[in-house]
Amino acid sequence: RINGERLWASLMELAKIGATPKGGVKRLALTDLDKQGRDLVVGWAKEAGMSITVDQIGNVFMRREGRNPSLPPIMTGSHIDTQPTGGKFDGNYGVLAGLEVVRTLNDQDITTEAPVEVAFWTNEEGSRFVPVMMGSGVFCGAFSLETAYAAKDTEGKSVKDELARIGYMGEQVPGQHPIGAYFETHIEQGPVLEDADKVIGVVPAVMGLSWYDCVVTGMEAHAGPTPMGLRKDAMQVSTYIMQEVVKIANRYPPYGRGTVGMVQVFPNSRNVIPGEVKFSIDLRNVNDELLNTMHEEMLAFIDKTRSDSGLAISIERVSYYPPCPFHPDCVGAVREATARLGYSTMDVVSGAGHDAIYAARLAPAGMIFVPCKDGISHNEIEDAKSDHLEAGCNVLLHAMLERAKV
Amino acid sequence: RINGERLWASLMELAKIGATPKGGVKRLALTDLDKQGRDLVVGWAKEAGMSITVDQIGNVFMRREGRNPSLPPIMTGSHIDTQPTGGKFDGNYGVLAGLEVVRTLNDQDITTEAPVEVAFWTNEEGSRFVPVMMGSGVFCGAFSLETAYAAKDTEGKSVKDELARIGYMGEQVPGQHPIGAYFETHIEQGPVLEDADKVIGVVPAVMGLSWYDCVVTGMEAHAGPTPMGLRKDAMQVSTYIMQEVVKIANRYPPYGRGTVGMVQVFPNSRNVIPGEVKFSIDLRNVNDELLNTMHEEMLAFIDKTRSDSGLAISIERVSYYPPCPFHPDCVGAVREATARLGYSTMDVVSGAGHDAIYAARLAPAGMIFVPCKDGISHNEIEDAKSDHLEAGCNVLLHAMLERAKV
Ligand SMILES: NC(=O)NCCC(=O)O
Ligand SMILES: NC(=O)NCCC(=O)O
Repeated sequence: RINGERLWASLMELAKIGATPKGGVKRLALTDLDKQGRDLVVGWAKEAGMSITVDQIGNVFMRREGRNPSLPPIMTGSHIDTQPTGGKFDGNYGVLAGLEVVRTLNDQDITTEAPVEVAFWTNEEGSRFVPVMMGSGVFCGAFSLETAYAAKDTEGKSVKDELARIGYMGEQVPGQHPIGAYFETHIEQGPVLEDADKVIGVVPAVMGLSWYDCVVTGMEAHAGPTPMGLRKDAMQVSTYIMQEVVKIANRYPPYGRGTVGMVQVFPNSRNVIPGEVKFSIDLRNVNDELLNTMHEEMLAFIDKTRSDSGLAISIERVSYYPPCPFHPDCVGAVREATARLGYSTMDVVSGAGHDAIYAARLAPAGMIFVPCKDGISHNEIEDAKSDHLEAGCNVLLHAMLERAKV
Repeated sequence: RINGERLWASLMELAKIGATPKGGVKRLALTDLDKQGRDLVVGWAKEAGMSITVDQIGNVFMRREGRNPSLPPIMTGSHIDTQPTGGKFDGNYGVLAGLEVVRTLNDQDITTEAPVEVAFWTNEEGSRFVPVMMGSGVFCGAFSLETAYAAKDTEGKSVKDELARIGYMGEQVPGQHPIGAYFETHIEQGPVLEDADKVIGVVPAVMGLSWYDCVVTGMEAHAGPTPMGLRKDAMQVSTYIMQEVVKIANRYPPYGRGTVGMVQVFPNSRNVIPGEVKFSIDLRNVNDELLNTMHEEMLAFIDKTRSDSGLAISIERVSYYPPCPFHPDCVGAVREATARLGYSTMDVVSGAGHDAIYAARLAPAGMIFVPCKDGISHNEIEDAKSDHLEAGCNVLLHAMLERAKV
């Protein structure tokens, strides 16, 4: 069993770097604070006797050698960059749970057959630099190193320059690092476990997602003198599409999701009928066929709305990730470890993307969820219970040992 | 008959002050450009032999003496401040049409019984300083001089300081200026005249309006991991209220109006369920009882939505103007002048507020509308036909002469 107090203490220590007044953390990727966070974690890994490899996109692999160094490592990891108003646990927990596994192996003097590695991936959050999940994405070849290097923040600083500046541009070619199996522990970022009062979420898969930009163009006009029948009100037409997004998701329970999160109205003046409304659509499902059906139904509704209203409506898909089922061996290892340890458990499909979906393209992968308070993350009030974090880390230890062999 | 070319030339000359690249005008109240515009118009008035009075809120009264100086003046006017992306005609037309009336009287050597005055009112648009229709509002006692003086722009500059700075803080106490009757010519700012192919709109009344701020508070949460059934999506709930605003207006044709023009979503992020949505509601009707019915129906719908959704919804009325019927004598004078001149005509209820609604609290008042292209105003592409502007000015001349007596 791991040491829950030591894990908690490390989480609180790391959370001091970039701590916000409201109890959260702001430690954006490749900032000075990210460097301080990286240095702290790397220092702890060295104290635990681990060796460090950094690749060209700044992914850091911290290795505890196995009896058979030629076996590919059993890896765990996550990220330590945060949202601008992020919490202490998102990502950080996955990295420090891995470190706690190694510390526990050291305490117990356990030697594994395969090496054990703990990774932290660069810029998972995507808050400062797009694309999101950048380090793991480059690692698995989802996009190129050049694309990632060229990404700039709002001040025009590039990933390449910032990586060099903080001293985390390594030499290893991304992806040229073997992985035997990959596990990631993470707070759920949703309310399902808490709602069902379970401690461990076994994650069979991550939902696929489609992101769209929709623009409805009407005609801006004065709210007083323009009769109702002569209006081309872009906001009104938008509301029908916005409602349909939710209706479509509700037609495909339990894993359909539909969200309009971002809305911009032009000219956005109290007494002007909106001439243009731009909004985002986020559709998700764990089943790619159903996700595609949702996509088709949305396009059909937009066609219908276009001809009913006479307004111009454009719709563009800006992102797509297919659903990612995890490997039966890894999911099985998590399930068995949970059963062996006697934790209450249920399957929780991940609604959010994680580095694990990219790792899963190269090796068997699986995830372990623990509850977070009110299902809230990406928020300074993000919170999780020490007991739950300890339980998730114990499951990680057992699952990794099962794969790494003692 | 007035000189349409001279009127047009003056409009184009004034429009040079603050001209924008797209053919509009940006001449915000009490700026250096407003001073230049005021100086130009005052200069023209002096050339036309008029005397000038400025009151303490910067309203300017330009007077052509009558045979009987003790009679209250027959007044016309409007404003020369513009929207940030305004046009050449909104307000400016009403002021320069008045000047053209005086020039015509001079050309024809006509002496009226009552004096004739042309006014321009300070800060009608309300773009730089709130409240809107400030000069005429202070003049009629709708709010105090102190309230107006204290109003600040986004840079913290006050009306009082800016008035003094541009040299238009006069000595006359606002409202201590007699008015015998008041006429205002204005572009329609709506599509009704153009749609019906009529030249002159006789304005029997201005609609009353109610403005509201509505805030729907849900719970922000991650768009992926949060099941549809556990959401408190503030945007979705808002869409039902937004649609009801239009449905209510449609239940009270032909003068019901309902508009949601301004929408702000928090945190406004693609993969976050909106936790709070704030939006404006603009309800109008020419009948105060119907406007009140619309108000009640909206409140009832919001109550129902609050209990159906379980979300917190606040609604606050931020402005209210009752409908303003114009005086039968002035409306009649406009109608008769139009008939005498042989212009095609129809009644057009004004959907927008004008300085005339405040003048109407102190004296008989009436308005004359002319078509504007596509009904568009508050926009750099605002446009009107020289012929129509000339026609409106001829109607103004005849209506004023009828009231001022020759
Ligand atoms: N974990 C996480 O918030 N990923 C961002 C991409 C998503 O919206 O799923
Ligand atoms: N004329 C005009 O645009 N007035 C502003 C107030 C309103 O919305 O009616």
